[in-house]
Amino acid sequence: MAAFHCISFLTDYGLEDGFVAACHGVMARLSPAIPIIDITHLVPPGDVRRGAAVLAQTVPYLPAGVHVAVVDPGVGTARRAIAVRAGEQVFVGPDNGVLSWAALGAGEPRRAYELTNTELWQQPVSTTFHGRDIFAPVAAHIANGLALDAAGDEVEFDALVALPRPTCVITDGGAEGEVLTVDRFGNIQLSVTAADLEQVGLRAGAALAVRVGERRLSVPYREAFGSVPAGELVAYADSAGWVALAVNGGNAAGRLGLSPGARVRLTADPA
Amino acid sequence: MAAFHCISFLTDYGLEDGFVAACHGVMARLSPAIPIIDITHLVPPGDVRRGAAVLAQTVPYLPAGVHVAVVDPGVGTARRAIAVRAGEQVFVGPDNGVLSWAALGAGEPRRAYELTNTELWQQPVSTTFHGRDIFAPVAAHIANGLALDAAGDEVEFDALVALPRPTCVITDGGAEGEVLTVDRFGNIQLSVTAADLEQVGLRAGAALAVRVGERRLSVPYREAFGSVPAGELVAYADSAGWVALAVNGGNAAGRLGLSPGARVRLTADPA
Amino acid sequence: MAAFHCISFLTDYGLEDGFVAACHGVMARLSPAIPIIDITHLVPPGDVRRGAAVLAQTVPYLPAGVHVAVVDPGVGTARRAIAVRAGEQVFVGPDNGVLSWAALGAGEPRRAYELTNTELWQQPVSTTFHGRDIFAPVAAHIANGLALDAAGDEVEFDALVALPRPTCVITDGGAEGEVLTVDRFGNIQLSVTAADLEQVGLRAGAALAVRVGERRLSVPYREAFGSVPAGELVAYADSAGWVALAVNGGNAAGRLGLSPGARVRLTADPA
Repeated sequence: MAAFHCISFLTDYGLEDGFVAACHGVMARLSPAIPIIDITHLVPPGDVRRGAAVLAQTVPYLPAGVHVAVVDPGVGTARRAIAVRAGEQVFVGPDNGVLSWAALGAGEPRRAYELTNTELWQQPVSTTFHGRDIFAPVAAHIANGLALDAAGDEVEFDALVALPRPTCVITDGGAEGEVLTVDRFGNIQLSVTAADLEQVGLRAGAALAVRVGERRLSVPYREAFGSVPAGELVAYADSAGWVALAVNGGNAAGRLGLSPGARVRLTADPA
Repeated sequence: MAAFHCISFLTDYGLEDGFVAACHGVMARLSPAIPIIDITHLVPPGDVRRGAAVLAQTVPYLPAGVHVAVVDPGVGTARRAIAVRAGEQVFVGPDNGVLSWAALGAGEPRRAYELTNTELWQQPVSTTFHGRDIFAPVAAHIANGLALDAAGDEVEFDALVALPRPTCVITDGGAEGEVLTVDRFGNIQLSVTAADLEQVGLRAGAALAVRVGERRLSVPYREAFGSVPAGELVAYADSAGWVALAVNGGNAAGRLGLSPGARVRLTADPA
Repeated sequence: MAAFHCISFLTDYGLEDGFVAACHGVMARLSPAIPIIDITHLVPPGDVRRGAAVLAQTVPYLPAGVHVAVVDPGVGTARRAIAVRAGEQVFVGPDNGVLSWAALGAGEPRRAYELTNTELWQQPVSTTFHGRDIFAPVAAHIANGLALDAAGDEVEFDALVALPRPTCVITDGGAEGEVLTVDRFGNIQLSVTAADLEQVGLRAGAALAVRVGERRLSVPYREAFGSVPAGELVAYADSAGWVALAVNGGNAAGRLGLSPGARVRLTADPA
């Protein structure tokens, strides 16, 4: 009997090669009745931080399951392969931080295991495709009901590689954060929440001053991008709970020239 | 017992974020046994007309099911959320025309409902991601067998937003239409059918004069793009029943500089 | 009872149109319980050789099943439609070589059939979309248990169109091959195996001289791209068994300006 009814899968493998399908195939052989939800395979090559952000924001909407995330520029080196149970979820992937935000978000208890049981792996194990040879078969076995401690040795959760949490600094009358992600529409997600803004007295309806480098922009803070006329900038609380900047019907990241990591400061616009 | 054995899903969400997967997850929690067929998620952002065309041309080949289409630049504004039963199909999405061509094509009877039963929705409902919070869960409930009138209040089908049908004007010895879609191969689909051309005496085998703006091209009308030598222009009745222009082994839209909406006139080529 | 528990699907249809979904729909109607694994739909338009390479490298990791591959620039011409049983796999597609490498790799016995039983097809059959109208429904019937000789007439396997195998020439102290594929990461897969290099005394740990046209590069031959510092070139045996060139954390194909078909010569680096 399956322990989980869903495997999810996120990588930077792209969609033009057969890499994603090879992993699907390995899992379909081992756990044919368990459906796989592809989160995305278009994480920019090696962008662990982007993979971590997309994983953490998507898993809360997935069924309890085994979530495989492989953004793994260190494949074939000494970095560990791990499985982490957090709340009702299990995460499988390299120990480079890609799982860290999602595991923190999935709640307690948290238990971590280094994948050392080579009998579960696809043999021969390649040096460069652990998604296919280690993570996919281990995930399928866990989804089938294998106990995590049969996949490897328990390690301290706190000893795993963790990405630094995106920062938000609340100061006199404002909040300063960074660009967390830019989505397909060019919407700019900031590491500032609506609750952060509320702490400094800013609520939907307010006028914001947005500072990016030397620039200062006046941006209305509204319910949605549709709340302003087409072509205009707007700030809003996005569907993941973060404050975002958008252009209604346009591409804010393109217009503002912002990409992940850029610092942004939000204050009340006195004008 | 499931009322439907298939959910299909079309959006402009792209494939680089977790948006599509979040919707899959919401549906997988509610209707885990019902498979989801992704039609496309690469509709250009906000291009309702393109979404409507792809949906209408694909649904005839899908099983009876619930078809969710979310190209929704007005999300978070007063536009309605709707479900439409047409023939043996159900369509779910925003009331902005994206469903209109597919609903017309799916036959009668047609019944429309405004989605007002908030108990079916994913709470809290975001202002910008109704695909995840409204359309996906409502579609899953309907696929599970929920009656449409339990999803909201019936409204007049004729009062829904409808996109204007692409026009084809038959005149003396010719037909004038517009570019409906351009596909991955650069094939140009026109709003002129083989039946339209037959009305003016043009059948496969004929030589066409194609007028686009000031240009006039001589194009053979044949069975398929493979009917002409590599690199040559050809007109043919495409797999959706429309007349299309292609370059055998090449990209006609690129060569002719045509995009959706451009006017094209077809007549017999006297040469 | 299903004869196969998996259909796989590879095309050059792209993901922005509804073509892939229409094929999924046709198969879902006929064999609703058999899951479909998408290998890729981003084969460059008409690139039969690329489709053949991705198919051949992916199928070994898929369950026994029916594998549909449609890269079909000759659709609508006299090229045959075929089904091939090889080992425990069945391949369905056009007879233009796209199936040839995978069929050779899947082992014996091999039996080939020309698809002539029009009763299995989606009617009316278009001239340009045989994926939807011929290959998808025939594959679904075979997956359901239909005998191959009920799909059409047996033909000689050796009379099918076969792509020339990529060449590798072993000479005094070196091996010369060609670029087989370039993957999403810009890794360059050569038609030279680790066994080929071993024949001329080259093993992981060696220093290679790589000659491309007039250029000569010194490249370490290691276990994985992670074995060299970030930004440096490396050669390694890749996950499909071929020797590949990569830049750790970078794009080797971009840096070296190499694309499929380019000749590459590997020898010991005397330096």
